[in-house]
Amino acid sequence: MSAVQTPTLRDVADAAGVHPATASRALNPATRGLVNADTARRVIKVAESLGYRPNPIARGLKTAKSGTVGLVIPDLTNPLFPPIVRGIEAVLEPAGYSGLVVNTDNDPHREQAQIESLRSRQVEGFIVATALLDHPLLARLQQEGVVMVMVNRRPDGLDVPSITPDDATGIELAVQHLADLGHTRIAHLAGPANTSTGVVRARAFRNAVRDRGLDDDPSLLATCRYWTEDSGATALRTLLDAGAEFTAVVAGNDLIALGCYDVFAERSIECPRDISVVGFNDMPFLDKLRPPLTTVAVPHQQIGAEAARMLLDAIADPTRPSRSVLLPLSLVVRGSTAAPR
Amino acid sequence: MSAVQTPTLRDVADAAGVHPATASRALNPATRGLVNADTARRVIKVAESLGYRPNPIARGLKTAKSGTVGLVIPDLTNPLFPPIVRGIEAVLEPAGYSGLVVNTDNDPHREQAQIESLRSRQVEGFIVATALLDHPLLARLQQEGVVMVMVNRRPDGLDVPSITPDDATGIELAVQHLADLGHTRIAHLAGPANTSTGVVRARAFRNAVRDRGLDDDPSLLATCRYWTEDSGATALRTLLDAGAEFTAVVAGNDLIALGCYDVFAERSIECPRDISVVGFNDMPFLDKLRPPLTTVAVPHQQIGAEAARMLLDAIADPTRPSRSVLLPLSLVVRGSTAAPR
Repeated sequence: MSAVQTPTLRDVADAAGVHPATASRALNPATRGLVNADTARRVIKVAESLGYRPNPIARGLKTAKSGTVGLVIPDLTNPLFPPIVRGIEAVLEPAGYSGLVVNTDNDPHREQAQIESLRSRQVEGFIVATALLDHPLLARLQQEGVVMVMVNRRPDGLDVPSITPDDATGIELAVQHLADLGHTRIAHLAGPANTSTGVVRARAFRNAVRDRGLDDDPSLLATCRYWTEDSGATALRTLLDAGAEFTAVVAGNDLIALGCYDVFAERSIECPRDISVVGFNDMPFLDKLRPPLTTVAVPHQQIGAEAARMLLDAIADPTRPSRSVLLPLSLVVRGSTAAPR
Repeated sequence: MSAVQTPTLRDVADAAGVHPATASRALNPATRGLVNADTARRVIKVAESLGYRPNPIARGLKTAKSGTVGLVIPDLTNPLFPPIVRGIEAVLEPAGYSGLVVNTDNDPHREQAQIESLRSRQVEGFIVATALLDHPLLARLQQEGVVMVMVNRRPDGLDVPSITPDDATGIELAVQHLADLGHTRIAHLAGPANTSTGVVRARAFRNAVRDRGLDDDPSLLATCRYWTEDSGATALRTLLDAGAEFTAVVAGNDLIALGCYDVFAERSIECPRDISVVGFNDMPFLDKLRPPLTTVAVPHQQIGAEAARMLLDAIADPTRPSRSVLLPLSLVVRGSTAAPR
């Protein structure tokens, strides 16, 4: 951002018709009580409309904040997360913040220990990518006033800012593509039922199939235990062993789709001639697979950047109402999808 | 580690035949001068033989250390680095340390700004994966007594601890495999000439070719500007356009090998029938490429773990002489290599 585009405290004060010192007090939750309530509301509204954000470095110098935030992710070696972390860092760095990364391996005990350890290091907030639908630890942290943003997934019934891909639209793109090719019996290998992404994508799949008059057959659904190749392979084997008949698969994510590739090799199934597959995420190097994987592209770097912006906003004003942002997705058509035989 | 296996300060003191307070003074560089020199040497020797390491959390409580270290890497979205970072974290976490990750994109200005920013956050040391052969910034940091460990690459003439793959042996494995298949004219797409990995692998390639009586032809060498697919593709095109004749390529790393795949597709070259390719690193999902890539497997997680151990050692005792560790490698044979036509 250039200096021209960044509103200053003085800009806010001028637009609200108050002294800068009054604007400053109104914008700081700790001193807001010193200002007339109507004035405070007006200043906050003006600051929001101008997109004003206090400079965290200058604030850090005054208040001895740590300048660090915790990044809680399941596993950095899952290719989904490095671009998210890079996107986060791209926004944190110019704002004078650094990220402390921890990997939880989705182990609740490990997650709790790591979050407590980060809190003891005085991190000013968390970006959390490990949210389960039911997540008591995150609920407790929120009650304790810990500043958090959920990325990629979010818990049910927790009023925290979140930035997630528009999963439902992504699944619709995949189903529409397969329907356009002539598929009517499409299977879904859903992600874990304890994650919002798994549940939202499975629900979207069923809606997309029904809306298009395709076969809405419960025997075409298998749910994966984890977001992994192994779980994807197991789920596909289960469908095949049960004798389910289908010509295409919408996988919950790319790793689950890669698990399908393993089963195809085991059972001499030719993709896409026998079965088409669509993944989700567009992780790197999918264009060089055999066959190159058709998938829903998710702008992970942008998701990370947006999460960091939301976190900086929440740190600057913890009383700000939480937002949920859905990022639009697109379909990348490659060699793993074709018309059914 | 269980409590049984972890030697305590008392164990060291008992084995050295001194009072625990004396052992403590002898092991702390700041208080060592208070102890008889022979006694100090004996205590240090005993502590090393027992594998004693001071508890950094307890130490942190007394000395108000930050408990953080800086991880300086080129780009987290290069699949080489996430497993290194995980390996680092696996060792830092139980020792009570966290890692602050920065991405430099190999930009010296960015690197300097980020390292200064991390120093201002009181990190206790750095693990650096961005080392160039000639690296004035790292030389200056070393002069200033900054605790550092080099990972994957290392600068020339700088006496800092480093942990790198045994690049020369890895290249030998690749050349031996191709020679066993019957190749005699093997090209090398070398990594950047300003990195130790690029230079060491290129030198090892030439030695391996000579030692086996294969064609040692300078026209079969091209040097890539970066460790990227694009640079790899450019280098291979240069060789082909110059009319060089070869039946196999040893690529400086997997990304350079993937660049070859792009050129093969452009020019209807069939791999491995027309040209065999060997990569280096064994990054994830290479088994699912078309064709699956034969490559030298590098234990990145182990490299990260070892780097973290060396850094903790150096933090505990900055006067400890630096070590350079080479980790052994192995060849993973897949579908991209075959006998020449």
